[in-house]
Amino acid sequence: MNAAPDPRLARFDGLIGHGVAAIDTPALVIDLDAMERNLHRMADFCTARGLRLRPHAKMHKCAELAKLQMAHGAVGVCVQKIDEALALAAQGVEDIYVSNEAVDPAKLARLAQAVRANANGGTRFAIAVDSALGVQRLGEALAHAGVNHPQAIDVFVEIDVGHGRCGVTPGEPALALARAVAAQRTLRFIGLQAYHGSAQHQRPVAERRDTIARAAQAVAHTRALIEAAGIAVPLVTGAGTGTFVHEAASGLWGELQAGSYLFMDADYAANTPDEGAPAFEHALFVKAQVMSRGDAHAVIDAGHKSHAIDSGLPRVWWPHGLSYANGGDEHGVLRGDHLPALGDTVWLVPGHCDPTVNLHDAMVGVRGGLVSGRVERVLRVDARGAIG
Amino acid sequence: MNAAPDPRLARFDGLIGHGVAAIDTPALVIDLDAMERNLHRMADFCTARGLRLRPHAKMHKCAELAKLQMAHGAVGVCVQKIDEALALAAQGVEDIYVSNEAVDPAKLARLAQAVRANANGGTRFAIAVDSALGVQRLGEALAHAGVNHPQAIDVFVEIDVGHGRCGVTPGEPALALARAVAAQRTLRFIGLQAYHGSAQHQRPVAERRDTIARAAQAVAHTRALIEAAGIAVPLVTGAGTGTFVHEAASGLWGELQAGSYLFMDADYAANTPDEGAPAFEHALFVKAQVMSRGDAHAVIDAGHKSHAIDSGLPRVWWPHGLSYANGGDEHGVLRGDHLPALGDTVWLVPGHCDPTVNLHDAMVGVRGGLVSGRVERVLRVDARGAIG
Repeated sequence: MNAAPDPRLARFDGLIGHGVAAIDTPALVIDLDAMERNLHRMADFCTARGLRLRPHAKMHKCAELAKLQMAHGAVGVCVQKIDEALALAAQGVEDIYVSNEAVDPAKLARLAQAVRANANGGTRFAIAVDSALGVQRLGEALAHAGVNHPQAIDVFVEIDVGHGRCGVTPGEPALALARAVAAQRTLRFIGLQAYHGSAQHQRPVAERRDTIARAAQAVAHTRALIEAAGIAVPLVTGAGTGTFVHEAASGLWGELQAGSYLFMDADYAANTPDEGAPAFEHALFVKAQVMSRGDAHAVIDAGHKSHAIDSGLPRVWWPHGLSYANGGDEHGVLRGDHLPALGDTVWLVPGHCDPTVNLHDAMVGVRGGLVSGRVERVLRVDARGAIG
Repeated sequence: MNAAPDPRLARFDGLIGHGVAAIDTPALVIDLDAMERNLHRMADFCTARGLRLRPHAKMHKCAELAKLQMAHGAVGVCVQKIDEALALAAQGVEDIYVSNEAVDPAKLARLAQAVRANANGGTRFAIAVDSALGVQRLGEALAHAGVNHPQAIDVFVEIDVGHGRCGVTPGEPALALARAVAAQRTLRFIGLQAYHGSAQHQRPVAERRDTIARAAQAVAHTRALIEAAGIAVPLVTGAGTGTFVHEAASGLWGELQAGSYLFMDADYAANTPDEGAPAFEHALFVKAQVMSRGDAHAVIDAGHKSHAIDSGLPRVWWPHGLSYANGGDEHGVLRGDHLPALGDTVWLVPGHCDPTVNLHDAMVGVRGGLVSGRVERVLRVDARGAIG
């Protein structure tokens, strides 16, 4: 394991100030103007309603963007993995919530070490639990790391509000877990995690609204039960880019975790928009180029090692009128009436931004649009591959 | 862009010599015994038939494995991207063929610089072409890099043998390209690239055999045409793990590019096996663990940021009798009669090894099996993310 120069980043060396044409392909390109409009729209939405925004950094995995979001009002960020939290904390992100469970002592030991290292200033951490074993092992990991101060880490109890993945059953089981958290001196019970993943891409507004209404019932019932037992529930956190309007309207959620709003992928754009919701623009693109031409098709140098296809194939953003067919790991096959020529640039909108970003070591930030803009920044994907 | 300690690799520090239980999850784990049996079976197959083996390193992206294959008879490796070639060459892989096209002057300049840097020993490079523009720009890039010696790089003309992706039309168009290559002093026309991608996963043997028989007709016709024009065609290269038996039987292909045989994924295992073909075993696994339990499901910490799903979801290898449902980027949802408990280890066989490996920075090599084995090596995925 050595440290030779990294060709994955070297291809972007010296790029700042150059035009878009100089960006090597395939590359993830951020339209910074569009991204900043998305940033402000979401910040304004939360400010107007007195809601905390804690965007999900599992989407961009980039400390620079996490800090940008926090500079515009976000209270911190979420991640899904302890190693994501460590990677962002190492780059100075100061408030990180692992909105997911861990029961593995080795993983919890890594988190506990980070809590200890940041005890006097530095990053504040939080994590979710959905089992007594998880609470017990978290407490043990902190003790083993020598973390003794009270409320050293914030803990949310995750309840399953209908997605059927993680989370304890709402009601009594959640109360039991809240008690277990509150009983540990080094843990601070901070509230409920309530996220409905499969609601995010229900296309009709009414379906998303109804799903979140049912989730809200589970939240309200559970919160009342815990508070009746004498344990305060300061915060309910959750929501994604597909549903946050409904969580916000419920009056129950105090913190929104939407992340994809910043880049806006093709899958979210396919939802019927909510009335009165901020309009988000596509801000993340794959720049590709034609590297082979047939009579009736063009082959570009971007396949599913350049963009994730779990939520559908990418859309061809430019040139217009082209369809994209999966050409495997390294290729995409374009068809249409006006095919681009060998060497021409093609822009794609990824189907799903989160796993797409995770394929890349850097994102190229462009100011002034994709046609005549210039490269302003190269943003490192700090937590790319941090799956542990 | 700094160089803080990398948590993506730190979680594997000090692992060598420890039992399988010590491997952090999710992780890619190689059963080294199974992998070596695959290695020898393929080497024996080629040796017995006098065929060259040039395995596709786009699959493992790992210099250590490329060298292992070459130590067991492989003449070199293939890759799909110039930056993959550079990443492997930087780690001492000495014979690398980019079995794909590039027309971008910046990319070709990177390759030309590497050709120059390796002119007196070091790595020998080859590349495919399927356009006159590609030939012209390759020659210009070499000249611009100061590469003047004859036959500095080997060049294959790729013909489209039915896949409908890259490759020039067989026959006259291929001859024209061969002439263009042969006319450039710094290029050596070395033969034809003929790979049928979509044939690899035709399930019935007869379909694969018939598809490769049609491909062979195109190869034979084109080779005869080029030789009739006075240009030698020393080699036809191609074939994958799904079809190599048929290319080998044709007598036309002199070099096989199969790569997945080394790890054997669920997608290839779903093919009806060819009679007399070597039997390959699953050697690549995702080690995961249960991090949440419901009454009727278990959630593991491996989602599609841990394994690619382009060729189907992973199979649950152990425990037996469980189904895997997609739980998103970071989760998998298991169902079945005997669900594992919180914290239990679960082993998956990925649907498609190539893009799965590309998600990981390292692979953990285990000797002695997945139950009682020990970690022998941690292999770096040198060309992970090298998509340029």
